[in-house]
Amino acid sequence: MPPLTVAFAGSGTGLWEIERMDAVAGEPLAAAARLDVTEGGAPAGPARWVLRGVTSNERYVTRGEHEGLAARQEPLGRPASRRAALILIRKSEAWWDLAQDERREIFEERSHHVGVGREHLPAIARRLHHSRDLGGPFDFLTCFEFAPAHSAAFDELVARLRATAEWDYVEREVDIRLRR
Amino acid sequence: MPPLTVAFAGSGTGLWEIERMDAVAGEPLAAAARLDVTEGGAPAGPARWVLRGVTSNERYVTRGEHEGLAARQEPLGRPASRRAALILIRKSEAWWDLAQDERREIFEERSHHVGVGREHLPAIARRLHHSRDLGGPFDFLTCFEFAPAHSAAFDELVARLRATAEWDYVEREVDIRLRR
Repeated sequence: MPPLTVAFAGSGTGLWEIERMDAVAGEPLAAAARLDVTEGGAPAGPARWVLRGVTSNERYVTRGEHEGLAARQEPLGRPASRRAALILIRKSEAWWDLAQDERREIFEERSHHVGVGREHLPAIARRLHHSRDLGGPFDFLTCFEFAPAHSAAFDELVARLRATAEWDYVEREVDIRLRR
Repeated sequence: MPPLTVAFAGSGTGLWEIERMDAVAGEPLAAAARLDVTEGGAPAGPARWVLRGVTSNERYVTRGEHEGLAARQEPLGRPASRRAALILIRKSEAWWDLAQDERREIFEERSHHVGVGREHLPAIARRLHHSRDLGGPFDFLTCFEFAPAHSAAFDELVARLRATAEWDYVEREVDIRLRR
């Protein structure tokens, strides 16, 4: 799949109602009523903020891990997914100065980022958007979608990731919870 | 170092005179007299084409390889570097569909991309710009700068890389040679 550019706009319109926005680390983001997600173009209408990201090639997972995820994961947009989250992350320069093997070791061998996510498949669908090279205030914009019955499981997933060695490198995080 | 966005414009102005432009694989690029390189902004004036890339974090090298390169490499802009090349590459979807460990294996264990480049340090300075996630026609824009006496060594470096397994995934390549 070629990279897909996606714009996330905090505005008065859009499919998703913003239930809650928490600044977990660093500066908050301005409050907005709804989240508008536009694939491949610019959002229509005025917005409090617009964040752009791009789906890109995988950066850390091995072939075996990729196959394990692909066999279980489901796409965004399932009719039953009436809850969602957009988690915005910026990592420190110390993270980006690490070499590839050092980042991989923290990401998976120490923090089990892929393994933790896989435990929640297919209930919690996920799509990662890279933003750092596009010059935005965050490095990663990750969408999660799930049925209301899996909200507690999502909270547990997020809590486990925040307790990992990888999260020591997170210097800004905003957690936006959504419903439709 | 945070990512630096760089614009390369084929125009009538700019520091570098274009000596030669070869379409090594795939479509050529429109002819231009000079190359204008603008860091962090948009190029001034009209241009036949503008390509944008961003210096980003390293994607494949290990800590040991990074240290080996950092100990020997020199930056762009040396007064003696009166010759340069801009090599534009697009890789196939088959490359981008590979997992990280598969790309790494082809890149270094089979093709010795880092090892071949290191043999030519510090004579041939190099800076890689990523372009795929920015939506341009190429995935990578790589600048090389060297003294006229090292032109033959640069030809040898390029020929060795083009003979590797990694280059089986290159579907478009334009080689622009420059002097000032």
